[in-house]
Amino acid sequence: MKKYEYIRQAAYEANMQLPKLGLVLFTFGNVSAADRNEKVFAIKPSGVPYDQLSAEKMVIVDFDGNTIEGDLRPSSDTLTHAVLYKHFETIGGIAHTHSCYATAWAQSLRDIPVYGTTHADHTTYDIPCAAPMSDEMIKGNYEYETGFQIISALKEKNISYEEMEMILVGNHAPFTWGKTAEKAVYNSAVLENIAQMAFITESIKADALRLKDALIKKHYERKHGKDSYYGQG
Amino acid sequence: MKKYEYIRQAAYEANMQLPKLGLVLFTFGNVSAADRNEKVFAIKPSGVPYDQLSAEKMVIVDFDGNTIEGDLRPSSDTLTHAVLYKHFETIGGIAHTHSCYATAWAQSLRDIPVYGTTHADHTTYDIPCAAPMSDEMIKGNYEYETGFQIISALKEKNISYEEMEMILVGNHAPFTWGKTAEKAVYNSAVLENIAQMAFITESIKADALRLKDALIKKHYERKHGKDSYYGQG
Amino acid sequence: MKKYEYIRQAAYEANMQLPKLGLVLFTFGNVSAADRNEKVFAIKPSGVPYDQLSAEKMVIVDFDGNTIEGDLRPSSDTLTHAVLYKHFETIGGIAHTHSCYATAWAQSLRDIPVYGTTHADHTTYDIPCAAPMSDEMIKGNYEYETGFQIISALKEKNISYEEMEMILVGNHAPFTWGKTAEKAVYNSAVLENIAQMAFITESIKADALRLKDALIKKHYERKHGKDSYYGQG
Amino acid sequence: MKKYEYIRQAAYEANMQLPKLGLVLFTFGNVSAADRNEKVFAIKPSGVPYDQLSAEKMVIVDFDGNTIEGDLRPSSDTLTHAVLYKHFETIGGIAHTHSCYATAWAQSLRDIPVYGTTHADHTTYDIPCAAPMSDEMIKGNYEYETGFQIISALKEKNISYEEMEMILVGNHAPFTWGKTAEKAVYNSAVLENIAQMAFITESIKADALRLKDALIKKHYERKHGKDSYYGQG
Repeated sequence: MKKYEYIRQAAYEANMQLPKLGLVLFTFGNVSAADRNEKVFAIKPSGVPYDQLSAEKMVIVDFDGNTIEGDLRPSSDTLTHAVLYKHFETIGGIAHTHSCYATAWAQSLRDIPVYGTTHADHTTYDIPCAAPMSDEMIKGNYEYETGFQIISALKEKNISYEEMEMILVGNHAPFTWGKTAEKAVYNSAVLENIAQMAFITESIKADALRLKDALIKKHYERKHGKDSYYGQG
Repeated sequence: MKKYEYIRQAAYEANMQLPKLGLVLFTFGNVSAADRNEKVFAIKPSGVPYDQLSAEKMVIVDFDGNTIEGDLRPSSDTLTHAVLYKHFETIGGIAHTHSCYATAWAQSLRDIPVYGTTHADHTTYDIPCAAPMSDEMIKGNYEYETGFQIISALKEKNISYEEMEMILVGNHAPFTWGKTAEKAVYNSAVLENIAQMAFITESIKADALRLKDALIKKHYERKHGKDSYYGQG
Repeated sequence: MKKYEYIRQAAYEANMQLPKLGLVLFTFGNVSAADRNEKVFAIKPSGVPYDQLSAEKMVIVDFDGNTIEGDLRPSSDTLTHAVLYKHFETIGGIAHTHSCYATAWAQSLRDIPVYGTTHADHTTYDIPCAAPMSDEMIKGNYEYETGFQIISALKEKNISYEEMEMILVGNHAPFTWGKTAEKAVYNSAVLENIAQMAFITESIKADALRLKDALIKKHYERKHGKDSYYGQG
Repeated sequence: MKKYEYIRQAAYEANMQLPKLGLVLFTFGNVSAADRNEKVFAIKPSGVPYDQLSAEKMVIVDFDGNTIEGDLRPSSDTLTHAVLYKHFETIGGIAHTHSCYATAWAQSLRDIPVYGTTHADHTTYDIPCAAPMSDEMIKGNYEYETGFQIISALKEKNISYEEMEMILVGNHAPFTWGKTAEKAVYNSAVLENIAQMAFITESIKADALRLKDALIKKHYERKHGKDSYYGQG
């Protein structure tokens, strides 16, 4: 148990942020935290209410999706997490929610356009919506294929997982990731915020315009560029 | 009093969930819990604010709508509950709310299409909206007929009450049910969530598409099928 | 001070409900409670934040709008309250808010159609939106004329103030009233709820239909008719 | 430290109001408080979460944007604040948020029309949306130019900064100001409220009408005119 204490605790704390940030109803979400040296991650057990969670209840799973330690069954989305950890080689956390506005965009099968600097503060691209999966993929190893659908969507648009830490899975809901589980949850909250504002923007102005490139770049660079001056450096 | 203690307590606790989940304003909702062996149910007294409720105040009513025990008048919707308990032979709880988004769908007289996996996690069908009642039914035994309107709507669509635990009564509001009162309330919260996301989805994309059958089936089966792998089994 | 203690306390408690029910931002609302025998009412002092209110700070005003007792200036809407108390001879409380959805309907200059039973539970009529006031009325005794605009709007539609305890003042915001200040605030919350659901209903279905008369009447009668069976009688 | 204690405390308290009023997610906002005699202002440090703020952590900056005192890096928007303090000669506080509805209007590049008295209680003009900045301004001293873009937008419309204490920066988000930091935050909350109600108004009625001039003037004058009778004078 000692061995994975750190990622258990990180996964537990990150999972508990979901209801606090208003991103989940009941158990409709899960967060994991990875130990990349050990090639394992701690993930929420399936269907357990947030107020009954503890660090000890987190399940330890390897990057192929095998349970390594834990008495409970891991999240039903575990294989999606495993595939992403295996292919996104520097990430340390993944979050999945059915947050209201981001999920509505996923259900509409549309990318979220960059309509403002709140979006550009986090990425220079539209938030991609991965295409719905083929019947074959759905009937096959569904959660495993969901991971590959995410990877393919980024590849198609030629965006790296480090440039884009959030995605909508068409007809389903968002997945986000980051260096840590905490950052993955942060990205889920940011995505929900961007999704809500984009929805209202289009309601106010049907033909709202995508941000000009110079402004997108400026906002991204001042937060993330080599000469960034946001935060305490 | 001892005899019905269990269902009184279950009904009380389930009723108290409604304001906590943001599903009711003032007293606009009610939940009941049934004892199927005794053929009775405990239901919220009419018009009593949630903060003045107690298990003792729940009213015991039989499946024909006769009050068996209790000093207070039962919910004005009691006959609807009675009819449903009589005809839906395995349910143990019923919830009725005027939650905002589900009620707006009921007011629009539209079924809620399956737009995403959040919906498919719970049912493979669109959430039906029962047709408005005829003037004759309204002027007759209204609440009793409301129960039959719900039963007819499911029959017409050839859906069993076990496959579909939620319905919109056209022009009125949602009713949900389940094995227990707690599950009925859970279904009310899920329905409100689905209703809100479907509304936003259509606002984002006017011609949003219904989910493909393979995906609907996959999500339903992984939670409720014979080889389900959601939750702790 | 003793003399008006009861209405001071009633007005204070009713005013404090406004922020709890999410009906006001800062000081954008006011409630009054009348003593019809004394022909006076207690009303919120103007511009005082809710967390600094007390029963003692309520201002006592007569039905002609003269301050009878109190060190603070009464609400700037005081004359509207005075006119309504003078002409609506059985009411004991009035509430005015700028609650979000009701105000948006007022700003759109539209009556709120009866789209569902939540509405019909409270009134059989569409919620009227009083026409914007003439320049002459605005430049004259504005708040006084606002009261008459409300009275005229009901007269034009041939609805009594006892049948309709809520109104939208065009371009402005809602006013509600009732037998008590508590009931007036209750009506403000119900109106906001109805306004929000009507907005969503029209978004879901552009050509949503008004409720059929039989259903409107049924729901109103079961709550307020001579054979009503809602509540504890 | 003693010297700037007053503005540190004012800036700290005003910043802490932003999350309480629901105007910020994470660190997406900042407030400053000026000492006009000393020609300096205290501003939130960049990227520090609200629950880790204290008066001591506020950074003291002069009206040219030079840090005068403080160990932390000031908000990345500091130069915008500096420019506004330099040119708006009587203001004592500035607030910047990415609040949801106001930001959506900024993203839609539209002024917010005066649709009701809630708006007219605060200003007689539409809330201006400053045009998106040129690529040259963006690539130059961006935050500095943002301040000038605000100043230009008011100049173009011939509105003084004392008549209009709020503005939308196109594609970005709102800035507000006032005699004090507390008033600037108050204006941010009012703007968000106005923005939300204007959005709903247009959804209810596509061709909603701007308020008539007489009513705009009346509401503004009764709160802010020389014979105003709102508040305690």
